[in-house]
Amino acid sequence: MEKECIFCKISANTLKASVVFENEHIIAIMDIQPINEGHVLVMPKKCYQLLHQLPIELSQELFRVVAEIEKTLWHIEGISCEGTNILQNNGRSAWQEINHVHFHIIPRFTGDNFKIKYQSKRPTRESLDELSDKIKKVLDY
Amino acid sequence: MEKECIFCKISANTLKASVVFENEHIIAIMDIQPINEGHVLVMPKKCYQLLHQLPIELSQELFRVVAEIEKTLWHIEGISCEGTNILQNNGRSAWQEINHVHFHIIPRFTGDNFKIKYQSKRPTRESLDELSDKIKKVLDY
Repeated sequence: MEKECIFCKISANTLKASVVFENEHIIAIMDIQPINEGHVLVMPKKCYQLLHQLPIELSQELFRVVAEIEKTLWHIEGISCEGTNILQNNGRSAWQEINHVHFHIIPRFTGDNFKIKYQSKRPTRESLDELSDKIKKVLDY
Repeated sequence: MEKECIFCKISANTLKASVVFENEHIIAIMDIQPINEGHVLVMPKKCYQLLHQLPIELSQELFRVVAEIEKTLWHIEGISCEGTNILQNNGRSAWQEINHVHFHIIPRFTGDNFKIKYQSKRPTRESLDELSDKIKKVLDY
């Protein structure tokens, strides 16, 4: 447990949260600054900063909880979302604000205020093939 | 297989893609309109529109591939990202453009051009507790 980590405190039950789900390894809570109403965070109780630091069994268990909660949000009275985003951020440059792995499940509604902006260049097929070859070579799975 | 679905065509190998990983159920390819270089898409070969339509075993298998590729992107020569986003969009209102479940793995770099914008209201603890209670009641897990 990291002393200053608020998600560690919540997992240890020393800081209040609105808990949606909890078992030995995993806890899911309402985000206190929701992008939309019904925004849930799912995390391992043990503190890992980045997704790939988790043992694969734990990340799969975590993802199962994410999938179960995502399914539920479509049918909750007072939420009844029209869509969802699953978002998980690794690193400061990727908007990670708390260094304790967590998944966002964000209910979505037509015309809501959540926007993304980016500029995309269309790469050549050759450059994409080159990248996929490089990844394939390193991928140990 | 959906006739007009480009991800079905790619999965059936009737449309060209830069493939990173492939097994019986899953395929991972380079996004042809990457948010950043190294942007990978991971999907089941079978066509499901939304995450919660997948059998849980398949979504867990899928997520294992996502986690393995995410880990790899930090160490690929020519990508070497400083962060990553895992993003999975369900429904038109949530930016889903192709009706075939897919995960985005987006390499991130300090100061890159991928931005999010939203307005968040800070709800009361009472309203969060009310929501968590509602979800807990419906959550069948």
